[in-house]
Amino acid sequence: MPKEKIRVAICGYGNLGKGVELGLLKNPDMELVCIFTRRDPSSLKTNSNAPVVSIEEAEKWKDKIDVVFLCGGSATDLPVQGPKFASMFNTVCSFDTHAKAYDYYKEMNKSAIKAGKVAMTSIGWDPGLFSHMRLLISSILPDSKTYTFWGTGVSQGHSDAVRRIEGVKDARQYTVPVESAIEKVRNGETPDFTTREKHTRVCYVVVEEGADKERIEKEIKNMPNYFDEYDTTVHFISEEEMKKNHSKLPHGGIVIGGGNTSEENKQVVEFSLKLDSNPEFTSSVLIAYGRATYRMWKNGETGYKNFSDVPLKYLSPLDYEDIIKHVL
Amino acid sequence: MPKEKIRVAICGYGNLGKGVELGLLKNPDMELVCIFTRRDPSSLKTNSNAPVVSIEEAEKWKDKIDVVFLCGGSATDLPVQGPKFASMFNTVCSFDTHAKAYDYYKEMNKSAIKAGKVAMTSIGWDPGLFSHMRLLISSILPDSKTYTFWGTGVSQGHSDAVRRIEGVKDARQYTVPVESAIEKVRNGETPDFTTREKHTRVCYVVVEEGADKERIEKEIKNMPNYFDEYDTTVHFISEEEMKKNHSKLPHGGIVIGGGNTSEENKQVVEFSLKLDSNPEFTSSVLIAYGRATYRMWKNGETGYKNFSDVPLKYLSPLDYEDIIKHVL
Repeated sequence: MPKEKIRVAICGYGNLGKGVELGLLKNPDMELVCIFTRRDPSSLKTNSNAPVVSIEEAEKWKDKIDVVFLCGGSATDLPVQGPKFASMFNTVCSFDTHAKAYDYYKEMNKSAIKAGKVAMTSIGWDPGLFSHMRLLISSILPDSKTYTFWGTGVSQGHSDAVRRIEGVKDARQYTVPVESAIEKVRNGETPDFTTREKHTRVCYVVVEEGADKERIEKEIKNMPNYFDEYDTTVHFISEEEMKKNHSKLPHGGIVIGGGNTSEENKQVVEFSLKLDSNPEFTSSVLIAYGRATYRMWKNGETGYKNFSDVPLKYLSPLDYEDIIKHVL
Repeated sequence: MPKEKIRVAICGYGNLGKGVELGLLKNPDMELVCIFTRRDPSSLKTNSNAPVVSIEEAEKWKDKIDVVFLCGGSATDLPVQGPKFASMFNTVCSFDTHAKAYDYYKEMNKSAIKAGKVAMTSIGWDPGLFSHMRLLISSILPDSKTYTFWGTGVSQGHSDAVRRIEGVKDARQYTVPVESAIEKVRNGETPDFTTREKHTRVCYVVVEEGADKERIEKEIKNMPNYFDEYDTTVHFISEEEMKKNHSKLPHGGIVIGGGNTSEENKQVVEFSLKLDSNPEFTSSVLIAYGRATYRMWKNGETGYKNFSDVPLKYLSPLDYEDIIKHVL
């Protein structure tokens, strides 16, 4: 029995939007209807044949799209685009500003309920899969303490912060988890780490000709919030080296939780990601949750949702009986 | 606002039943109402104050229990007890005979729907959490190939098989994953392994006085289905050594899935368990899914369910808003 394809759209054509466009090629049960952009649509060169549409025209597409992937940033795009799109479409977004997650929940819930749509939020790997693991581990092992380590991977926010320093032409910042800290947790210990004990930061920096490297290194290492609480290493490199060795956006991390089920028995659960491309992986997660969003909406659900609302069967293109036969 | 406790019972007081009894101490939102047994109730010495009741009397407890944890074995207990209990109670069980999972689904679904109850099945770590990870990874990375490795851990079935050999007094069999195979998958390779290439088997054996060790070793290594397709090592040890070093039931394993999101970008997801006590951990998983079973039933759901039907929020004692504030 041929199924109808899920009609999807992308809003925002940066790294994440491009990742969704690419990922959809591997998900034949979905069909890319259009790409929404804030830019002049004619200026956008995309990799698919889907029409590019101004974000202002979105309302006209209301009946042609089942799910919109909101691929803007959490700082300024999603707080505006999220509620607006949730009032017209089922949406999936990667909203990741932890401090504002509760306010965003209220906003998105209001919009989506009023529209009779589902607003799936904070999807990706952290928040997202890592939240999933934190909740799973703490539910199964009530005594456990769960730790999250990030990296080794590029932090775009930190790279940007270094780039803003005078004399810096380009920069890439890697967040690196401290191996000995991971080992402790893996062995079932439950220490209280300081920020410095969990992660270090490594910067690769290209400077303008004649720039004062000593001053730049000092400015990086002492930058409040970004670097001052970490042990930071700074490497000055050439533009060529930057291009050759640091053009990808790898990332990853580990969630580990350990707890005792009895005095003598310790249980350790670990989940890890090793990603060559952070945006491509995040996009793949968005797509699977897009499928779930559509199915939950089809079942009559509306309003704000996050990872914890989703029965896993909805993520998979497999039929339920095939899950029993082949995955269980 | 104080919540009503979930009233639970245990059916079957072996390793798993004892594990649930113990685990409930760490889950204050549940209350152990009674323990059902096939044995003479007066012969059972339990660790809690809950009354011990003959399994034949179960029907009398229908209105006093919200969820029954079925802790019998999959070979002979659950095929009988499962449908019977599902016709009276919400149930959670760890049914793990993969080849019969589909038939069990049909049986349990029929009973539970008729009774207006939820029958949560195949809960534990494999099937259970490992199935969860296999489905999650394959949904996110459609191109991925997912591998499951078990161990290092005690296989009770294999230990029993060795114990049945003439001249063997006691035996413990450990399943050990092949490290180089794990490394290959971790590096994103997707080989086709033979059985021998994925796991080895290590046996610790205590023999009767004067027994022919050479013959015993040969019989173990050539035992069809159990050992003949594996590289097996046999260690003959004393009774004291067995007691001192092999009295626990540790286990664990790894699920790894790797797939490409584009030609140049590979993504690897890994989930692992390191368990001091297999039955205590499995029990802890059953308990969390018992909470979910109760909540799904309260929401009006009935019939067969497995891990893939459960929204994760139902596993946790946390309120939904606390999940958003503290776990997301």
